[in-house]
Amino acid sequence: MGSDSDWPVMQAAAEALAEFDVPHEADVVSAHRMPDAMLAYGRDAAARGLSVIIAGAGGAAHLPGMLAAVTPLPVIGVPVPLKHLDGMDSLLSIVQMPSGVPVATVAVGNARNAGLLAVRILAAADADLQQRMTDFQAELRAAAEAKGETVRRAVEGTARKTGF
Amino acid sequence: MGSDSDWPVMQAAAEALAEFDVPHEADVVSAHRMPDAMLAYGRDAAARGLSVIIAGAGGAAHLPGMLAAVTPLPVIGVPVPLKHLDGMDSLLSIVQMPSGVPVATVAVGNARNAGLLAVRILAAADADLQQRMTDFQAELRAAAEAKGETVRRAVEGTARKTGF
Amino acid sequence: MGSDSDWPVMQAAAEALAEFDVPHEADVVSAHRMPDAMLAYGRDAAARGLSVIIAGAGGAAHLPGMLAAVTPLPVIGVPVPLKHLDGMDSLLSIVQMPSGVPVATVAVGNARNAGLLAVRILAAADADLQQRMTDFQAELRAAAEAKGETVRRAVEGTARKTGF
Amino acid sequence: MGSDSDWPVMQAAAEALAEFDVPHEADVVSAHRMPDAMLAYGRDAAARGLSVIIAGAGGAAHLPGMLAAVTPLPVIGVPVPLKHLDGMDSLLSIVQMPSGVPVATVAVGNARNAGLLAVRILAAADADLQQRMTDFQAELRAAAEAKGETVRRAVEGTARKTGF
Amino acid sequence: MGSDSDWPVMQAAAEALAEFDVPHEADVVSAHRMPDAMLAYGRDAAARGLSVIIAGAGGAAHLPGMLAAVTPLPVIGVPVPLKHLDGMDSLLSIVQMPSGVPVATVAVGNARNAGLLAVRILAAADADLQQRMTDFQAELRAAAEAKGETVRRAVEGTARKTGF
Amino acid sequence: MGSDSDWPVMQAAAEALAEFDVPHEADVVSAHRMPDAMLAYGRDAAARGLSVIIAGAGGAAHLPGMLAAVTPLPVIGVPVPLKHLDGMDSLLSIVQMPSGVPVATVAVGNARNAGLLAVRILAAADADLQQRMTDFQAELRAAAEAKGETVRRAVEGTARKTGF
Amino acid sequence: MGSDSDWPVMQAAAEALAEFDVPHEADVVSAHRMPDAMLAYGRDAAARGLSVIIAGAGGAAHLPGMLAAVTPLPVIGVPVPLKHLDGMDSLLSIVQMPSGVPVATVAVGNARNAGLLAVRILAAADADLQQRMTDFQAELRAAAEAKGETVRRAVEGTARKTGF
Amino acid sequence: MGSDSDWPVMQAAAEALAEFDVPHEADVVSAHRMPDAMLAYGRDAAARGLSVIIAGAGGAAHLPGMLAAVTPLPVIGVPVPLKHLDGMDSLLSIVQMPSGVPVATVAVGNARNAGLLAVRILAAADADLQQRMTDFQAELRAAAEAKGETVRRAVEGTARKTGF
Repeated sequence: MGSDSDWPVMQAAAEALAEFDVPHEADVVSAHRMPDAMLAYGRDAAARGLSVIIAGAGGAAHLPGMLAAVTPLPVIGVPVPLKHLDGMDSLLSIVQMPSGVPVATVAVGNARNAGLLAVRILAAADADLQQRMTDFQAELRAAAEAKGETVRRAVEGTARKTGF
Repeated sequence: MGSDSDWPVMQAAAEALAEFDVPHEADVVSAHRMPDAMLAYGRDAAARGLSVIIAGAGGAAHLPGMLAAVTPLPVIGVPVPLKHLDGMDSLLSIVQMPSGVPVATVAVGNARNAGLLAVRILAAADADLQQRMTDFQAELRAAAEAKGETVRRAVEGTARKTGF
Repeated sequence: MGSDSDWPVMQAAAEALAEFDVPHEADVVSAHRMPDAMLAYGRDAAARGLSVIIAGAGGAAHLPGMLAAVTPLPVIGVPVPLKHLDGMDSLLSIVQMPSGVPVATVAVGNARNAGLLAVRILAAADADLQQRMTDFQAELRAAAEAKGETVRRAVEGTARKTGF
Repeated sequence: MGSDSDWPVMQAAAEALAEFDVPHEADVVSAHRMPDAMLAYGRDAAARGLSVIIAGAGGAAHLPGMLAAVTPLPVIGVPVPLKHLDGMDSLLSIVQMPSGVPVATVAVGNARNAGLLAVRILAAADADLQQRMTDFQAELRAAAEAKGETVRRAVEGTARKTGF
Repeated sequence: MGSDSDWPVMQAAAEALAEFDVPHEADVVSAHRMPDAMLAYGRDAAARGLSVIIAGAGGAAHLPGMLAAVTPLPVIGVPVPLKHLDGMDSLLSIVQMPSGVPVATVAVGNARNAGLLAVRILAAADADLQQRMTDFQAELRAAAEAKGETVRRAVEGTARKTGF
Repeated sequence: MGSDSDWPVMQAAAEALAEFDVPHEADVVSAHRMPDAMLAYGRDAAARGLSVIIAGAGGAAHLPGMLAAVTPLPVIGVPVPLKHLDGMDSLLSIVQMPSGVPVATVAVGNARNAGLLAVRILAAADADLQQRMTDFQAELRAAAEAKGETVRRAVEGTARKTGF
Repeated sequence: MGSDSDWPVMQAAAEALAEFDVPHEADVVSAHRMPDAMLAYGRDAAARGLSVIIAGAGGAAHLPGMLAAVTPLPVIGVPVPLKHLDGMDSLLSIVQMPSGVPVATVAVGNARNAGLLAVRILAAADADLQQRMTDFQAELRAAAEAKGETVRRAVEGTARKTGF
Repeated sequence: MGSDSDWPVMQAAAEALAEFDVPHEADVVSAHRMPDAMLAYGRDAAARGLSVIIAGAGGAAHLPGMLAAVTPLPVIGVPVPLKHLDGMDSLLSIVQMPSGVPVATVAVGNARNAGLLAVRILAAADADLQQRMTDFQAELRAAAEAKGETVRRAVEGTARKTGF
């Protein structure tokens, strides 16, 4: 990520990876404050054994795109919302990459989905991990179904004509 | 609705239906977490006797459109505003449906209007219910007229040259 | 609709209704140029036997909301895109109605969906029409499936690793 | 205004008119909840001796435009910001009027400017009032100049190379 | 206006004034290219006998607001759309004036409405002109009603169940 | 993709995959017109041997998110721009997915980048393919450097004080 | 700046200048409330020995552009966010200047960057100051690198497969 | 600039510099396709004798900000509009830089203003060049005044009551 101020948003990515026992590292590599170290981080990532890079940044968010420029690895970008503009600047700065250098962008502030996307990417070549993702989706389903109970009770006793 | 976290917004729809004594049910059917149950809910809705479906969702809000894809019933979509982007993402995700599969979209966060729209739809073939909607509109008018009193008094005593 | 200049957009609604043999009328009732006639149109609509009103308008699009204010019928609003702002002004002017007076809004410029939504509303109390809507959806499905053929052939002969 | 909930925003218009001793009235005339009374208000305004109408409304804000449709008086529209979308919906619903029916729109939530614009309009045919507006502008200038003192002191003692 | 390139848009204001036989002048007074002459134009306007100022500008559109700063006359702003951003920049630059200095803003590119608003303002103190505005509105109504004929014929012969 | 009308945009993804000799298939699986077949496509994708899914859709673009809901594979979403709103609706409908179900979103209309992202994902577990991606990036660099020649010549002969 | 209410935002510019020992002054010169004094300030700036002007303003932010119209000095504009629209109006009103009269615009609310940009401009002809800017950038880098420590520790002990 | 496809937009900057006889160079240095050469270009710029850098880029426009990260020189950013989103993505990606690393942003597509801003920056320490900028502004004024003639003639002969 570009600053430790992004950590409260970005740690949800680390948590998602930890849930799937995917080893990972976290670091501050600022595109604007330490550009050489940032490029070096990106350039060495594959050789160091990384398989996916998750990069969060806000405003004129250049980190994900610059990393994607120097690594052949898939780079996942998390638009971190700042005080103004509600993350729209972050989103457009990350997702609108030119042809040749893609960044896999997730929702504004949704670092958890960045972690889960990294798991899916790793799972594309790891049957066990893919099974765990499938299991995770089954748990999501079960949890969502359970949530319906509360709501159903709130309106029970009325005959049905309209559903929602 | 897609999650029980939408219930604080969506219960206003249930309340509107209750005001008109329209029987209804409420449930969590998440497009993304329980897609099969969601499609089954939509597909069976007409046969189970439902006449209208109200679906609220936020962000990449796919629930209303997916339900509309599998039911011939009218589907009303409520854009639920999330933490960022003020519901604009929810609105566009719901209203911009492709030709062939319409969703009747109401204002951001306005589940009460979804309930009232459902009443109007049911009332199109139910003269009594239509009369109640007409009465309801008369009450709205009376209430609005009464509200003017407070404001009129706040400025009374001045001669009239500008009105507002 | 508010002007005959909206007819090129709005006639797709008439065509959809015609496909389902739903009798309908079309008229210019401008909220801003003929407000009394507009309100009279809305107020008399139910008594004249109309079941649903479709209203298209652009820019500061007040027609759908004003009609909804004087009729208990469901009103469907079509945001007609004008020369500037790509229909965003029309969309917000139609969809963001206050509590009490809903307008069922469809996508920018998508009058066909307004017609199809009207059919669904009428079909909520008309089993034959609902069956026709179900048949129509089956035809949509068949047409979509057929479209896949062209695309499938364009890439055939390659083994599968990535799908889209 | 369309609701007494708009009064906290709109009373700044009344205050501005009072500062210039312009007689005025205030009322709730809701476009959507009491359309006939609203049109009647607009239609009778000129005959009742009003010279300018100020109308505030939020969301799908139809009041200013509908009043402008039935009166030859200048109508000033105040976009009242609601809970979502920050007044952008209100602004577009008011300002984007079709040719033939203008609404004089002021800034989001800026009812004070609506009052001051009404004064300018009345002053166009009232030399005394115009002089008062000129005096008011001189006071604004004096107040702004005085405000500079605080800021100038905050940085005094440094030589000048950059100004702001 | 700020440039003669705005004339194709702005001449519709002159035409509207001519329809009502309102004497007027047109000039290029650029806020950014001739600021002193611009301020002088604004400052002298009332003394020269002008009653209303119409100012069109695009992009960072400062002309209407700067004129309003130096004249007690009502100033009408026309947001001229430029090549990019569809006039949204022009609109916000004109309408979002700070408290104390209002600009009466009309729709993007709608100089005709600026002319008609000027007529309404002048008519607030001119009974004959106000009658002409009332007549003009009657003509608008008649024209709108006539337009309905074409559309009504396009669908005639079908019984009525849906109206639009 | 959701319709064969998306093919002109989406075939750039197929071309990118072909450049890297990545076997692939293309099909029309419409979320709204053939929801069951769409879900079946997604659910069976991993078992059929697919490793990545690329999904393009426009407007209320539900296809990428719905596929992501039923497969553990990484899903890449391409926001296809439609006639209105310039792809902003497509972008938000795809990228703003809720926690649990990520979609890897690329730039509006940039299907080529979707193809290249798929290559990067596959290359994360395929050293040869990763080398080809590295080579591809070297070619991009060489091509970009060559492009500078034309521009450099256009201004040559002037001494340097400003660079761009 | 246009008002002392902008000082809480704008003082960060003064602080940045002070860090580099750049002499400066601060004043309130309102484009809309004291237009003549504002133009005089701009016109005299170069003769008074100023080298750069920083101007902050919000809403219909005309100050930076009007100063740029009357001075040959570089003018830096700071979009001050107001209560509504999150500074988007301020940004567009400042940055979208017509050809001939540029304003160097920085991020919404980022007066510190305006100060730093002024330093860079002055440093373009002052080798010592340029060295200080280079040193400052080295400090930024060191600070950013130090920030990584906290984050690295938060996830240490896991093997590396995903980096961010 | 990031690509020779930006040259049609960017050459207006070169032309402006040439009008003022400011020596300059032009090159393609792509942030995403040749990141090392790009950083090297920025890092060496001051030592090579450059005083200002102008950088144009579109979409996720990272070039101006990345150059600003490695040079103490003032960097001017030109948001180049691409096929979609009308340059809004380019603008936000360039202007919304984090504290510490400013980019002097000009209007969407307005490279001429970037050239003129560079002249103003150089002129801050070059009295002759500053005089030429002052002369240039006088010519702008004269040209604007001349343009008024055409427009004045278009409406001459009418008495004055409304000005614009």
